[in-house]
Amino acid sequence: MKYGVATFPEKKIQDFANSYRKRYDPHYALIPPHITLKEAFEMDEEMLPKAVEHLDQVALNTSPFTVHLPKISTFHPTNNVIYIAVEESEAVKKLHEKINSDVLYHESAYNYIPHITIGQQMSDDELHDVYGSLRMLKMESKTRIDRFHLMYQLENGSWTIYQTFLLRG
Amino acid sequence: MKYGVATFPEKKIQDFANSYRKRYDPHYALIPPHITLKEAFEMDEEMLPKAVEHLDQVALNTSPFTVHLPKISTFHPTNNVIYIAVEESEAVKKLHEKINSDVLYHESAYNYIPHITIGQQMSDDELHDVYGSLRMLKMESKTRIDRFHLMYQLENGSWTIYQTFLLRG
Repeated sequence: MKYGVATFPEKKIQDFANSYRKRYDPHYALIPPHITLKEAFEMDEEMLPKAVEHLDQVALNTSPFTVHLPKISTFHPTNNVIYIAVEESEAVKKLHEKINSDVLYHESAYNYIPHITIGQQMSDDELHDVYGSLRMLKMESKTRIDRFHLMYQLENGSWTIYQTFLLRG
Repeated sequence: MKYGVATFPEKKIQDFANSYRKRYDPHYALIPPHITLKEAFEMDEEMLPKAVEHLDQVALNTSPFTVHLPKISTFHPTNNVIYIAVEESEAVKKLHEKINSDVLYHESAYNYIPHITIGQQMSDDELHDVYGSLRMLKMESKTRIDRFHLMYQLENGSWTIYQTFLLRG
């Protein structure tokens, strides 16, 4: 089964993200707007209790924190993705590292850059149009991270929540 | 903000339900297949800590249980819905009553009938076609209910998870 770990920003950020995702993100209907904390990974269902115990320990040892969402950015030309940048994000990166450790450790080919995707798999023209109109936007938003969720993927590609973990360090 | 409480059956039941929902349920992309435990209700965000405390108490006092999913049924002619029937469901009904009490009590115009919707807002013709081919199906499935989730609705109608509550009575 395919699992993943994510956290959701507050509702008004999700609504803002969805207003773009609806047109520019093929994953729009598969999962709400989110910050990925651990990319999708294959795991035997038998491993679930150990994974849950690990995530519970991480949550127990991590305090809630606030991240800044100052602007829209892009991974172009590496990847035609437009996203809400997550800054002052040391705490998210640490959380990602703690989650991606122990029984849930997987080597990653990429550097972890926390973000909220609002468009992906875009053509160059689309990306330049949308990013061109959004790049000057000052968001000056923040969102409180006080929980994360273990999810699993259904056959149609959509994600169902398995369990919430409250940060209580 | 609009909130709701639901539980998700195991993955293979969700995949089965989605194979029909994709064509016959306009809510297909808004939420995974689920058993509603408390219908959508309006609540001030300020009330959230009290609601969470209430749900936590319910979870603390309820033991995990198994429900039977023996067949496909319909609310027609009252409502053109096709669903997976949830039987031997006293425990679900009790859980619904406990959730819908105290700070989360709302009067309901309907009797609570636990079910997993696989089609809704169907034309009479559609409903008769689909139900006609499914009514003889013996599902003989079960699903373990050991958790439920408090969710909130985004502007686009989709649902994001706020928190999981593990049954630990």
